[in-house]
Amino acid sequence: MKIVIAPDSYKGSLESSEVAHHIARAFKDVHPELTVIQKPMADGGEGTLDALAAATDHKRQSIRLTGPLGDPIDSSYLILEDGTVAIEAASVLGLTLVPTDQRNPERTTSYGLGEAILDALERGYRTFMIALGGSSTNDGGLGILQALGLHVQGKQGKPVGSLSKDLYHIDSVDKSTLDPRLEECTFRVACDVSNPLTRPNGASHVYGPQKGASEEQVNQLDEALGKWGRLLNEDNMETPGAGAAGGLGFAFLTLGGELESGAKLVSEAIKLEESMKDADLLITGEGKSDEQTLYGKAPAYVADLAAEYGIPAILLSGSIEGDRDQLRSTFMSSFSIVPNIISLEDCMNHASNYLYDTSIEIARLWGHIVER
Amino acid sequence: MKIVIAPDSYKGSLESSEVAHHIARAFKDVHPELTVIQKPMADGGEGTLDALAAATDHKRQSIRLTGPLGDPIDSSYLILEDGTVAIEAASVLGLTLVPTDQRNPERTTSYGLGEAILDALERGYRTFMIALGGSSTNDGGLGILQALGLHVQGKQGKPVGSLSKDLYHIDSVDKSTLDPRLEECTFRVACDVSNPLTRPNGASHVYGPQKGASEEQVNQLDEALGKWGRLLNEDNMETPGAGAAGGLGFAFLTLGGELESGAKLVSEAIKLEESMKDADLLITGEGKSDEQTLYGKAPAYVADLAAEYGIPAILLSGSIEGDRDQLRSTFMSSFSIVPNIISLEDCMNHASNYLYDTSIEIARLWGHIVER
Repeated sequence: MKIVIAPDSYKGSLESSEVAHHIARAFKDVHPELTVIQKPMADGGEGTLDALAAATDHKRQSIRLTGPLGDPIDSSYLILEDGTVAIEAASVLGLTLVPTDQRNPERTTSYGLGEAILDALERGYRTFMIALGGSSTNDGGLGILQALGLHVQGKQGKPVGSLSKDLYHIDSVDKSTLDPRLEECTFRVACDVSNPLTRPNGASHVYGPQKGASEEQVNQLDEALGKWGRLLNEDNMETPGAGAAGGLGFAFLTLGGELESGAKLVSEAIKLEESMKDADLLITGEGKSDEQTLYGKAPAYVADLAAEYGIPAILLSGSIEGDRDQLRSTFMSSFSIVPNIISLEDCMNHASNYLYDTSIEIARLWGHIVER
Repeated sequence: MKIVIAPDSYKGSLESSEVAHHIARAFKDVHPELTVIQKPMADGGEGTLDALAAATDHKRQSIRLTGPLGDPIDSSYLILEDGTVAIEAASVLGLTLVPTDQRNPERTTSYGLGEAILDALERGYRTFMIALGGSSTNDGGLGILQALGLHVQGKQGKPVGSLSKDLYHIDSVDKSTLDPRLEECTFRVACDVSNPLTRPNGASHVYGPQKGASEEQVNQLDEALGKWGRLLNEDNMETPGAGAAGGLGFAFLTLGGELESGAKLVSEAIKLEESMKDADLLITGEGKSDEQTLYGKAPAYVADLAAEYGIPAILLSGSIEGDRDQLRSTFMSSFSIVPNIISLEDCMNHASNYLYDTSIEIARLWGHIVER
């Protein structure tokens, strides 16, 4: 018997590799003879590099680059076995890198992400996987593209900075100055939102406020992104996902990138499908599951993949909420790790114990199957 | 495939028959072809008659008798198929029959329980199953025995009432006046405590306070029960269980009764063992499970019984607390119905939904077994 364990993280308490580890430990404790494959997952947001690092052969490249506030930060990217460079936007320009009292998307830049790409270009790499999500920026990729050579000018040829607020002063762009090596590159971009670049469903209106933008700033940023979009690549402004990560989606479309499901990209990178081929059970999970889980979240993606191989999927999450009937369309069974009436704090602090204990119960029930 | 569902009640929210019903409904919804046997259990305390009524062919005999405060109340007992009369002390003299502001074990009597027995004697029955537990009394069975003919006198031949405080004035008893039909009777008494009649581990000290006795009353009642015990049947005062239900254990020992595990008595009455003989799975549960569950509680009793037939037991309880490793010595798997971070009130109010939902998840996992 063989089981595959491919959970997302329990956000705020356990990384996906930890979740997989505790479930695996329980199943091995109950059934030492069982083949247990750990494939920690991610959906292309925060934690994606950790998941890739846990499930692939890779090299981690450290790099000092420009942080979201313009100060230098230490970050890293992964070089996977096949030469794909995996970069997580959240670890370069993530909202969690910006102290709460300094959050203001007018004052952040995606410049560092361009530097990371440039560093990889210098080292000879041309294939990129970029995980968007969790960004602090709203610059439409102004910073990235400047780092990669785009010439941007204000009125009367004035130089333009790389913060979102610098978008207000742009008069012209010259794409011919972009690094010519970009022509040889492919960018697969993990993106699970479908927002256009601008207008009511665009980057500024939908995600600006949670990054610290006032209503006035939202309107100004939306207008500036509109102008930026028209200057650079008007055709891509309405493409679903252009508005992801403060318009980084748009920047990668401009570079010829493709926006894809984060769970799909990650599962390909960790070769999840190959591990399914002779498996008997899949276990997945996430911090909180509800009907939204079925819309592109990692657990639903891996369960659907398992279903193609006739493998039943168990959802084991921090909590299970909402309409369970809908979850049952995708998961054979779903269980919460909550054992009794406890506080959220208790659950988060002792998630590894609760997860291990519940996994043991499921493993023992499953073991009864093995014996029959 | 056949499963047996034999849970205790979820105290405060669902009767054992309701718990069994919701689990059964879930398993039938998932597997219409499954044979599902419902055997709601009880441990001899409150709810025992309900469990017996749900799982046996029986006649219910209504009766008006003396309540714990001396006022008449309407109660009932069951006559089972084999002629056994089942009486639940809680429904005749239970603490829940006494308004909170009137709780005072000096002022309560077990007289009504004697009247119920007398009524059954009149109807020709001689075999009794008595569920102790949940009593409001501390009279050592003074009331019962008076109702059954015991002659009790105070000093100078003064008459003696039937409340616990009347124990203070007893000078002599005359057992020869007891109803002679009692000689033909057998009393099997469900009792899961091992307290002696008196002293620090006795009825008054251990259970008096929760029935409303002050420290002074506890001491007086303990002393009075000591005198009462020595007058009536000194040999039985130390018998484990003599102190059950305010000394009702002692009274039944005096009548030649046997104190037995409540879960064992109930499971015999509902013919639980017979239903196990070709079953594939047992599901049990209770409101709250922890290590104490293993000490004579109904779920552990039925799981042990199932184990004799090689049938695995799943524990499905309102909450699972404490050391789960210990529970695993008896139960294949244990699950709580709690799906996420909820309040106790939410859990109690929606217990039937949470129970049904969790049962569905287990049934679907189990169904996977059936299919293999």
